[in-house]
Order: sequence, then C-alpha cells, then structure tokens
Amino acid sequence: MNAMDAAEMRRRVEAARVARLATSGAEGRVHIVPICFALDGQTLYFAVDAKPKRTANLKRLRNIAAHPEVSILVDHYEEDWDNLWWVRLDGMARVETQPGEVDLALKLLAARYVQYRVSRPAGPVVAVAIERMTGWSAS
Amino acid sequence: MNAMDAAEMRRRVEAARVARLATSGAEGRVHIVPICFALDGQTLYFAVDAKPKRTANLKRLRNIAAHPEVSILVDHYEEDWDNLWWVRLDGMARVETQPGEVDLALKLLAARYVQYRVSRPAGPVVAVAIERMTGWSAS
Repeated sequence: MNAMDAAEMRRRVEAARVARLATSGAEGRVHIVPICFALDGQTLYFAVDAKPKRTANLKRLRNIAAHPEVSILVDHYEEDWDNLWWVRLDGMARVETQPGEVDLALKLLAARYVQYRVSRPAGPVVAVAIERMTGWSAS
Repeated sequence: MNAMDAAEMRRRVEAARVARLATSGAEGRVHIVPICFALDGQTLYFAVDAKPKRTANLKRLRNIAAHPEVSILVDHYEEDWDNLWWVRLDGMARVETQPGEVDLALKLLAARYVQYRVSRPAGPVVAVAIERMTGWSAS
C-alpha cells in the first residue's frame, strides 16, 4: 500500500474526466453512479443532468438529503497492475442553492466539459465539502 | 434515460476489466474501491489482494460483515457523451468460506487476469449474490 502526497492526489483528480459517486440510502443501501465534476479548493462540484421534473425522484439526491456523507473515487486501470492507482474523496454533500455558488460551479464545470458550455445542466448542482483525500498507487 | 436489456448489460459487464464497489460502514458512511472481478451466473466474485495480516482491518471487509448490501458499477466514459453508458449491480456480499466455491472463484478470476494466474490473491474471496442489474446508455 503506497500512499500519495496531497499535491499528487489533487493533480490526478483534476486530470481525471470521470469519477464515481457512492451515496447511502434508506436502510444503509448504497448507490453508485458516474459523475463529471470540477474541483475547487476543498469543494467538488457536479451537476445533475436529469430534467427538473425527474430530479425529485433521483436516488442520488434523495440519498444526499438523508445521508450527506458521500465517497467519490477516481481511479486508473490498465493491464499492467504496477500502474494502478486510485484517489478517494470523502465529504459532505449538499444541493447548492446559493445563486453565486451555483454560478461558480457551472462556470468551473463548463471550463472542463464542452457539453456544459453548449447547454447548462438541467438539474441542480451538488457541492461536496471534502473532508479527506486518500490515495493509493501500486508503484 | 435509456434502459438496456439483460443480455446487453451482462455482455458489457463481462467485457469490463474493472468495476467500482461501494459498501456501507458504521453510521452509514459509504466507502468505494476499484475491483477486478469475475461474473458467474448471478454471482460476482472478487478477491482481496491484501496480505492476511492486514485483511482483518480492511474497511471493505468490515463493511460487508456489518452491511452485506453492496453496489457495483461498471461504466464507460469518453468525450462524446452520446457514447456514455453504465451498468449497476446491487446485491448481497459475503466472504466466501466454502473451499469449492473459493476454488471456482479463483479459477474464474485467473481466467480473466494473468496476475491471478501468476500468483493466487493473498486475501479472501468475496461473493456477491446479484439481486438486480440496472443499465443506462446515452444512445
């Protein structure tokens, strides 16, 4: 088990295009989805692409309301296992409602993903206050 | 939101080389790690690579003992979001102790990963009884 320093973890997370978000729901059932994201200091933002009418029913949002503790993983796989690594971010998620922070998040997301420049995501923005970053690298 | 049929979900999971496992721990805190796996009917197997001395302390195993409900994600990312897809498997995990089933799991894992042919994984094998497969594809 080889730990990674904070700057290296951040560099790898920022370079990643996709992460996976795990949330905890009713009766402790976990749920996991891929997310596109932007990192800003100790906050990670992602947007929900679902249409507003469907948003209320999205499990990731219901789970976050009930259990804000989430875990987010960025990892690298290839057939040479000496090159495997992952970085995990644990933190507290909230649906962002302050217009200034929503705008900032959408700007950061648009800077990373052309799709968000073409059209603003239909659903809400979620902000995750990162409490801990853990990294592992095989070599 | 475009659903996928069962055969297509299975085909994509079997072709994937890595998945992400989410488990639920104490006080509902979720945990997420990448896994290499093999699928056999309605069971997904993965092995723990940690040395036996460290195994007792691995969060994914402590979590499974406390909360066997797990969620496993296989997904595809590329810059053209029309090609995005994911398949999620929800099920009940247990550390496999029956020698016959451990042997079967290790054979299936070795068939998929050369690393497991070279050396048997040091830690235990986990079997996940899949209760539900859910798939989504952008197009």
